[in-house]
Amino acid sequence: MQRYFSDEQTLQLKQTITLPADLYKHAITVMRMREGSEFELVTQDQQVNIMTLTAVTKKSAQAQVTEIFTHQVELPVEVTIACGLPKSDKKTDLIVEKGTELGATHFIFFTSDYSQGKWDEKKQIKKLERLNKKALSAAEQSHRVVVPDVKYVKKLADLDVSAYQARVVAYEESAKAGEVSNLVQVLSHLQGKQTPPQQMIALFGPEGGISPQEISTLEANDFTLCGLGPRIMRAETAPLAFLATTMYALELAQQTPKD
Amino acid sequence: MQRYFSDEQTLQLKQTITLPADLYKHAITVMRMREGSEFELVTQDQQVNIMTLTAVTKKSAQAQVTEIFTHQVELPVEVTIACGLPKSDKKTDLIVEKGTELGATHFIFFTSDYSQGKWDEKKQIKKLERLNKKALSAAEQSHRVVVPDVKYVKKLADLDVSAYQARVVAYEESAKAGEVSNLVQVLSHLQGKQTPPQQMIALFGPEGGISPQEISTLEANDFTLCGLGPRIMRAETAPLAFLATTMYALELAQQTPKD
Repeated sequence: MQRYFSDEQTLQLKQTITLPADLYKHAITVMRMREGSEFELVTQDQQVNIMTLTAVTKKSAQAQVTEIFTHQVELPVEVTIACGLPKSDKKTDLIVEKGTELGATHFIFFTSDYSQGKWDEKKQIKKLERLNKKALSAAEQSHRVVVPDVKYVKKLADLDVSAYQARVVAYEESAKAGEVSNLVQVLSHLQGKQTPPQQMIALFGPEGGISPQEISTLEANDFTLCGLGPRIMRAETAPLAFLATTMYALELAQQTPKD
Repeated sequence: MQRYFSDEQTLQLKQTITLPADLYKHAITVMRMREGSEFELVTQDQQVNIMTLTAVTKKSAQAQVTEIFTHQVELPVEVTIACGLPKSDKKTDLIVEKGTELGATHFIFFTSDYSQGKWDEKKQIKKLERLNKKALSAAEQSHRVVVPDVKYVKKLADLDVSAYQARVVAYEESAKAGEVSNLVQVLSHLQGKQTPPQQMIALFGPEGGISPQEISTLEANDFTLCGLGPRIMRAETAPLAFLATTMYALELAQQTPKD
């Protein structure tokens, strides 16, 4: 069923709403839904509301809540993916789209020492608008109950990491030196600590990697240097591999067989 | 250092070779290497040979083996990714490129029940040539010692699975039903069985998923149905998430801390 996100804080069973303009446009004009058609509407309280269209005119439409359920689809940790700005929009797009499918909740891009671009203020607004739209549509498609947000900070020093209980940085030199167990240890410390969800930040360099100065700053801020296996991954691949390993460690391997 | 793959079976220390035309073109014309420049050449025996250019003319170049080493960068299992043909070239490209970075050794595309396209014979040759080139260049970039191959079979029934000791299929219905432990169990059975590497096939549907008939066929062929977490992934994302979880289970979590 088509899923949309709503600005409404919460909805009650049988409550009727008028579709906001963007929802009307997609559901009625693009998807050609009619009276009796159903869709899912996720409210800010992360409830999934099954909505049935009760009235559709050429200008507006009304829908009623016919069922409400809770769907546990979020990673048990709240993951922030922080990336040194890669070369191309194609890569930022991929990180946000696939990273949303894989469960990240926040994305922060920053101009790192080896980044070949930066976003001035005008660019920032345009780029972030585009990326936040990508995150919304990926969240709808992957049936998340949270829409990840995408931000930009000028440089690593502007990144406030005080809220994160777990901090890792993917470091190619660690991988080359054969380091394999740091990520496993960080993730195993998070196992079982699910209420409230722990905050985790995972930081990745752009194409040229992370500078020694940046590594020093990160180490001083209690980041754990982690290898991600012996193969060299492109800048946009490493965050996705990290998210999949987090899913494996905290969702799949965490649960015991049901029978 | 730039890495290339060679058709040579093996090379000896101090042996001198004449660069094949395509290597000459990339190393000398594109990368502007000169006498004394070094590059890595991986031979069929998976050895990494450090080559030093000893003579460069406008038409040919010679290089000598100055060092030979073995680099363990391959996954401890040999993974075949089999995918129902997705809608667009963009998706097959992404599966092959990122799948190579993440350690897959073989890719097989097939026209599944819900695939919206098929490759006739003429198309096949062109598409496979393009995808195999993508695999080669991703293998060079991610410093693999094996170049993955990409094949096509017309339908699921044409896929010979007799050689695979481990067989899994990512099944959205399993994920929806909350199945989380099958993949963990399959991967843990593979732990430690590394000589010779076990053969594993992981099968994925196209956009519409896998048909009930196909699931029956796969179950009859001893495939284990696996969920890949509660979020719905696009067709091209699931194989990459699977490969990252395999890396985590068999490479990272497998090793004990070194100190």
